[in-house]
Amino acid sequence: MIRYNGWGDESVTMETAKKGLEMLKDAVGPGQPGEDCPLAKILAKVGASRLPEHSLLSREPMDRYTHAHGQSLPDWIAMRGGTLENFPDAVAYPTTSQEVEDVMEYAQENDCLVIPYGGGTSVVGHLNVPKSDRPVLSLSLERMTRLIDLDRYSSLANFEAGVRGVDLEAQLRALGYTLGHYPQSFEYSTLGGWVVTRSSGQQSMHFGRIDQLFLGGEMITPRGTMKLPVLPASAAGPDLRQLVLGSEGRMGVLTNASVKVQPLPEMDQVYGMIFPTWNHGVDAMRELASASLPLSMMRLSNPKETKTNLALSGHETQTKLLNQYLSMRGIDPEKACMALVGVIGSKKVARAGRSKAWSIAKKHRGVIIGKAMGESWEKKRFLIPYLRNTLWEHGYVVDTLETAVTWDKVTNLLQSIDGAVTDAMAGFDEKIHVFTHLSHIYPIGSSIYTSYVFRLGENPAQTYERFLALKSAASKEIVKAGGTITHQHGVGTDHKAYLPAEKGPLGMEILQDVVKLCDPDQRMNTGKLLD
Amino acid sequence: MIRYNGWGDESVTMETAKKGLEMLKDAVGPGQPGEDCPLAKILAKVGASRLPEHSLLSREPMDRYTHAHGQSLPDWIAMRGGTLENFPDAVAYPTTSQEVEDVMEYAQENDCLVIPYGGGTSVVGHLNVPKSDRPVLSLSLERMTRLIDLDRYSSLANFEAGVRGVDLEAQLRALGYTLGHYPQSFEYSTLGGWVVTRSSGQQSMHFGRIDQLFLGGEMITPRGTMKLPVLPASAAGPDLRQLVLGSEGRMGVLTNASVKVQPLPEMDQVYGMIFPTWNHGVDAMRELASASLPLSMMRLSNPKETKTNLALSGHETQTKLLNQYLSMRGIDPEKACMALVGVIGSKKVARAGRSKAWSIAKKHRGVIIGKAMGESWEKKRFLIPYLRNTLWEHGYVVDTLETAVTWDKVTNLLQSIDGAVTDAMAGFDEKIHVFTHLSHIYPIGSSIYTSYVFRLGENPAQTYERFLALKSAASKEIVKAGGTITHQHGVGTDHKAYLPAEKGPLGMEILQDVVKLCDPDQRMNTGKLLD
Repeated sequence: MIRYNGWGDESVTMETAKKGLEMLKDAVGPGQPGEDCPLAKILAKVGASRLPEHSLLSREPMDRYTHAHGQSLPDWIAMRGGTLENFPDAVAYPTTSQEVEDVMEYAQENDCLVIPYGGGTSVVGHLNVPKSDRPVLSLSLERMTRLIDLDRYSSLANFEAGVRGVDLEAQLRALGYTLGHYPQSFEYSTLGGWVVTRSSGQQSMHFGRIDQLFLGGEMITPRGTMKLPVLPASAAGPDLRQLVLGSEGRMGVLTNASVKVQPLPEMDQVYGMIFPTWNHGVDAMRELASASLPLSMMRLSNPKETKTNLALSGHETQTKLLNQYLSMRGIDPEKACMALVGVIGSKKVARAGRSKAWSIAKKHRGVIIGKAMGESWEKKRFLIPYLRNTLWEHGYVVDTLETAVTWDKVTNLLQSIDGAVTDAMAGFDEKIHVFTHLSHIYPIGSSIYTSYVFRLGENPAQTYERFLALKSAASKEIVKAGGTITHQHGVGTDHKAYLPAEKGPLGMEILQDVVKLCDPDQRMNTGKLLD
Repeated sequence: MIRYNGWGDESVTMETAKKGLEMLKDAVGPGQPGEDCPLAKILAKVGASRLPEHSLLSREPMDRYTHAHGQSLPDWIAMRGGTLENFPDAVAYPTTSQEVEDVMEYAQENDCLVIPYGGGTSVVGHLNVPKSDRPVLSLSLERMTRLIDLDRYSSLANFEAGVRGVDLEAQLRALGYTLGHYPQSFEYSTLGGWVVTRSSGQQSMHFGRIDQLFLGGEMITPRGTMKLPVLPASAAGPDLRQLVLGSEGRMGVLTNASVKVQPLPEMDQVYGMIFPTWNHGVDAMRELASASLPLSMMRLSNPKETKTNLALSGHETQTKLLNQYLSMRGIDPEKACMALVGVIGSKKVARAGRSKAWSIAKKHRGVIIGKAMGESWEKKRFLIPYLRNTLWEHGYVVDTLETAVTWDKVTNLLQSIDGAVTDAMAGFDEKIHVFTHLSHIYPIGSSIYTSYVFRLGENPAQTYERFLALKSAASKEIVKAGGTITHQHGVGTDHKAYLPAEKGPLGMEILQDVVKLCDPDQRMNTGKLLD
């Protein structure tokens, strides 16, 4: 059973160590657990549907509630507090492209707003239901999960767009292949959702971001179906795939997608490293990213995240031993930065690459501490979102924000985001625990992934007020520095105000025009991405 | 001095071996040299300019003639025969972005059509001047060639868009860097031209196509300047860079471009291989492309191209020895397919990659014949276009066409293109010599690069009629097979009729809308890419 007001399956919990909670108490004060609104009370708020019956849709309150939100912090505040106000009038569950067309026809007949729904994991408000005089229909693709075709000769797989990450990989691995796209939401997020929000997987350094994996497919728009042919490369004018990528439901519904697949690599291993300071770590990451090596991922935590992760993991004895070892190597544990580096490929090439990578790391005083830390990360990589449930129950809110920027700006921006959220929280006489890592590393720059923990407010409104202040303070710093407002989560509602800074006035006009052309009645996910 | 009616510098010629000419005579009959129209006669046709004087532009007949064409076969026929009918009324030579804006203002005041001009190497009619009541202005970027900024810390270079390939690489190499973009037109084509036509360099397997190298810049449109920020990656909605890439002057003029650069690789070597049959070669290329190896390029010639290249090279003794060696290894020289494979990177990783690549090649019965053939290719890589001058003077026309398609269709499409052009030429009771290679190889498919030689017609009109028949027959096969109408040359006028098959009706409407938004007066390169 899915948690009705949190992340993931009810039977799964991710406990946090006592030491971790003590650290948070020291950092921001004792947690203030709030009161959860019971499910029955929420469902009682779901009013009568304004839509007529149809064999492809449900008007049940439970369906309408579960499709009324994603997993953003505002969504959580609303779910936990029972303050969600708007629900779709019905949820459609088509099982074929033809049925999607039928649903789109129904939507037109009933002048609905349509919100395409994949796995429900959006963290930026893609799924929020606007208050509208028009009825709202959630168009869920969760019953469209088939592998339609695997072309081994061309290394191509075509899937229905509603397939979830775990299910997609299971289908491919049974046939000896992998897509290799692993966002943290992998358990629930879907192929179609990845495409229309420009998702990035944890091992994108090797496998590519979804924009490099998505090669074609079909999008059903109110103006007809757009077929994107699968081509190895093309110089035939602008690339329309790149409009569908990131379209966030505004142009139409992606029903199937062709992706590049590959046989499972011979070697795929993640190693831990420690750098004596942040600057040493950054210099190593920069050089490794430009060295054309067979690496699958790189990640560098700042000193605060390094300490936080060690505290939350609860491995006190190991942590002590590690710190002793680092001291022996002349590294101050207070300044130490943990890194993860993944090596991937055919054995000989991967080993030669690893040897080159280690020599670069050592040049920057990196200490390679073996596979244990990488293996532990691999085990927990999709469990981290469950930690949010646990912390919330202890009275703490954890949230993240992310951007990407060229190397010349990385360290300054990281620091100014940290400062901005700390100041914003100080405005409420509250403290915040902020920690950061570089998660996706490129030759020209890096993404910055900042997490922060603060105390729940006395009521949902107060918690939301804190979120808004933090989000706005950080977003302004990002825009000022010329970073992207989102490296991997999409725009939705939460980043919408900051999009014009990235796209410029003419760029915004172009996007508005494209959306208007595909959706003349402004039916599709209105209010997300663009006004 | 640039040849007034052919390719490249007058002082450079690329001779063809006697054996090569004999082979062509056997294949298609004796050449029929035509009569070239002298320059003076052409310039006499350049009428009075309809545009007023301006300090940034020239109305000289010679400038107006050289900017009235590119290097497509129809352009050649017109240049050689002196049948060019339309010339720009003036050529503008801005030296800064501000001057480009001034020229655009002048164009608006005088209601001009504007044709942006880079290196003049288009092979699909991008630069052709339409017959129009409105005066036509060629906007040349050839005086905007500066390296504006090299950011070593972020591996980024920002150039003015008019910089030619050779000049760009020279500026970067002086500072220890390379872009690594080497299309065959490298001597003359420009960065801006590469971007707006989605160019692909010969070593794109390592360095990336221009769409992967181009990270941002500025485009001056009639509706204002579009600034594309440089970001390592972004999930903030559709990617507008991907509209500028391939825009072919229809949205505006790209004035500067930021590109990803890298230090020169430790190892960069091209090797020759021979496969006993086409199918062995294809299987090897396919497997190599999916093996994530440090390769810079792969190229596979079919048996006819293999023989043609050996004959044209004139190395008769070496060719004989090679054939003896191949026979010894059980390979029939009639069926042999030559391949080139480039290995690149840091020494240890490149060597491990080479070892893995050779074992894959050998599994498919490939015979590695060392570096000589690769070195010879490297020496001549930018000289091949000069061969067109030589063959023309012997009465032969050589032209090429290209596409890309997924692996399952590669061999069939190659054969059907071959058949279609052969049949089309038979319709004129003429023969054609057709040979093909796969030039850019991807995990999911390959580009197909078909060259053909036929005899000049008795007059320009007859030669053009032959070209049209060939082009249309081949293009129809490409569209039927679901290939792209162009992998690396762009659309221009010659591929325009086939674009809707690739983009679909809604896709075409989107492109039309975007162009109309940026250029409401339909001023910019009208008639190219789209109607």
